Amino acid sequence: MTMTTLPIQVQLTETKKPKPDSETLEFGRVFTDHMFIADYTEGQGWHDHRIVPYAPLSLDPASIIFHYGQTVFEGLKAYSSEDGVIRLFRPEENMKRMNLSSDRLCMPQIDEELALSGLLQLIEIDKDWIPNAEGTSLYIRPFIISTEKFLGVAPSRSYRFMIILSPVGSYYKEGIHPIKIKVESDYVRAVSGGTGTAKTAGNYASALKAQQVADAQGYSQVLWLDGVERKYVEEVGSMNIFFKINGEIITPAVNGSILEGITRKSILELLRHWEFPVTERKVSMDEISSAYENGQLEEIFGTGTAAVISPVGELNWKGEKMVVNNMEIGALSKKIYDTLTGIQTGKVKDPFDWVIELNQNLVKQL
Amino acid sequence: MTMTTLPIQVQLTETKKPKPDSETLEFGRVFTDHMFIADYTEGQGWHDHRIVPYAPLSLDPASIIFHYGQTVFEGLKAYSSEDGVIRLFRPEENMKRMNLSSDRLCMPQIDEELALSGLLQLIEIDKDWIPNAEGTSLYIRPFIISTEKFLGVAPSRSYRFMIILSPVGSYYKEGIHPIKIKVESDYVRAVSGGTGTAKTAGNYASALKAQQVADAQGYSQVLWLDGVERKYVEEVGSMNIFFKINGEIITPAVNGSILEGITRKSILELLRHWEFPVTERKVSMDEISSAYENGQLEEIFGTGTAAVISPVGELNWKGEKMVVNNMEIGALSKKIYDTLTGIQTGKVKDPFDWVIELNQNLVKQL
Ligand SMILES: Cc1ncc(COP(=O)(O)O)c(C=O)c1O
Ligand SMILES: Cc1ncc(COP(=O)(O)O)c(C=O)c1O
Repeated sequence: MTMTTLPIQVQLTETKKPKPDSETLEFGRVFTDHMFIADYTEGQGWHDHRIVPYAPLSLDPASIIFHYGQTVFEGLKAYSSEDGVIRLFRPEENMKRMNLSSDRLCMPQIDEELALSGLLQLIEIDKDWIPNAEGTSLYIRPFIISTEKFLGVAPSRSYRFMIILSPVGSYYKEGIHPIKIKVESDYVRAVSGGTGTAKTAGNYASALKAQQVADAQGYSQVLWLDGVERKYVEEVGSMNIFFKINGEIITPAVNGSILEGITRKSILELLRHWEFPVTERKVSMDEISSAYENGQLEEIFGTGTAAVISPVGELNWKGEKMVVNNMEIGALSKKIYDTLTGIQTGKVKDPFDWVIELNQNLVKQL
Repeated sequence: MTMTTLPIQVQLTETKKPKPDSETLEFGRVFTDHMFIADYTEGQGWHDHRIVPYAPLSLDPASIIFHYGQTVFEGLKAYSSEDGVIRLFRPEENMKRMNLSSDRLCMPQIDEELALSGLLQLIEIDKDWIPNAEGTSLYIRPFIISTEKFLGVAPSRSYRFMIILSPVGSYYKEGIHPIKIKVESDYVRAVSGGTGTAKTAGNYASALKAQQVADAQGYSQVLWLDGVERKYVEEVGSMNIFFKINGEIITPAVNGSILEGITRKSILELLRHWEFPVTERKVSMDEISSAYENGQLEEIFGTGTAAVISPVGELNWKGEKMVVNNMEIGALSKKIYDTLTGIQTGKVKDPFDWVIELNQNLVKQL
């Protein structure tokens, strides 16, 4: 990949914040010293790309973002490892997906290379914030908000693109524990023709209620079904889902309502590289339930940036509890987890060219 | 209705803005001198109810509102008439609906009376902003945004409730012209189990794309169909919809995916009061199309706060163009429009007790 050299203005902070203890880090509560910003004005395009001290935004109360949620976001991570190298996992895929999301939301496209270059510079500036305890990382949140001061329901004529960074703790502080998931029968996340394929605010707002109900019942996530027939598996809160049934690995096909995860995509490539039998297709809950009854439901795992692999130990479908692989992580889940996290941290060879090493790229660029 | 006396702190502006010319007013671009604010903190509830000068908000870039769209809003109007009285139309219904929306979005309930009381005080302070040319009004936008600085997908632990006011021009500057509407076959607004019944940002963000396509085809709005069978009529952009077929008035029943409009509700009450045959039920596009072919499709109108009544002159369903009532406003549409706008401006007697007069209520209250 080649990087564009950019006129990014950099203004460094005068008061660096204390860094958090990497042992007690939570997710998404602490942010680094700087942020990347670019503004969009109709007729002018994106302008004023800059890295500035992390600070509050000042927005008119009538800004479209507060009323009609015209916004998209992304989520990815940078990893710092024992070898001192800072790595990013397929960040160009996130920039590409952000543009797909923006298209659905009638928002302007960003220059993906330029955004990536801004991100790399930002990380370089705040690299001391990347925790390096096992399993920790720097969570990266690019997002674009609509800023026009207007109460009419119409695409905004101005936007702000920002990237903020948050050091996050290990997802698996006490080892990998399979999670319990509730199959959602009342609420629907997205339907074909809606915004399910985009990473946009409304999809997450609408998911809160089902999550709250599931929490109260002792389930850590919900598994969404399709909104039309309420039969087919879609995805989990912030993860795609895979099933291993009688040796075959199955994940719901991209269908116009699920988010196409970058972890999902990478796992499909990995499994095909390994020559495992893997299928993208419709999967009904009836099929899962029969497989369970026949003793063929071997593994279930969620996939996403946050946890990489999240084995599912129990699935509750309308009261029917399916315990998977004895509530233990399956061999395949473990193999995928070790391979992906190994590639992300440079401990396993990356035959796919998925990883971008920070220093090397900045050298190319500056 | 009784009003609660409230400890609302009032801080008046020192620099009043110039008022716009009421002849050239647009919708939702100009705001008055003050705004109402209340803050919510978990454990403490709503606090610091205040009226302050209209000013930008300062929010952390990691605030939940920017990422996951946890927010609700309302829209209503205040009317100033020749008799010098300022009137609001069923504002308590908006506060009630805001609480219903909040419930769907896992947001805290507001005290409806207190919010209404705050609104009336705010209008009293900014009442010189209410335009009084025929058809003009003061648009009122209550909204609640999630303010916690946190990137986890979970209900926010802090919120801000605001009310802002915008003087708006007449919807029908050049007389009532029936609009052309496209029946949407590709995109879906909402599905049962989703957030369609709530007035929340994501529903509007997801609607932008279909609207953009319709615009380009010369249609001013889209008519949404149900997301499951794509057969039944739901509602228009920001309006509910009514059909008059062979003497019967029909509107889609509240079904778990449409917004229950206050104008819709009022029109149903009015029609029943007039003893017109009116039905809330499922209406398919097939039925509309057959009625059209049989010459029984007499009137179609949209209903909502913005235009009150918006007659539909053409409906385009997959290329089939149905011209309604010769592109002219129908007699019933006109009768409802005159009655409702008459009640709203005090020119027609209000037998339903729908109108709140500002002065009278402030006297009750202060
Ligand atoms: C709804 C949803 N599905 C799936 C995923 C997994 O996507 P990825 O693997 O790109 O993190 C995410 C998280 O980004 C998500 O928010
Ligand atoms: C989606 C939607 N449907 C219907 C309506 C009409 O509701 P009301 O009559 O309360 O203005 C609105 C506007 O508020 C709306 O946004």
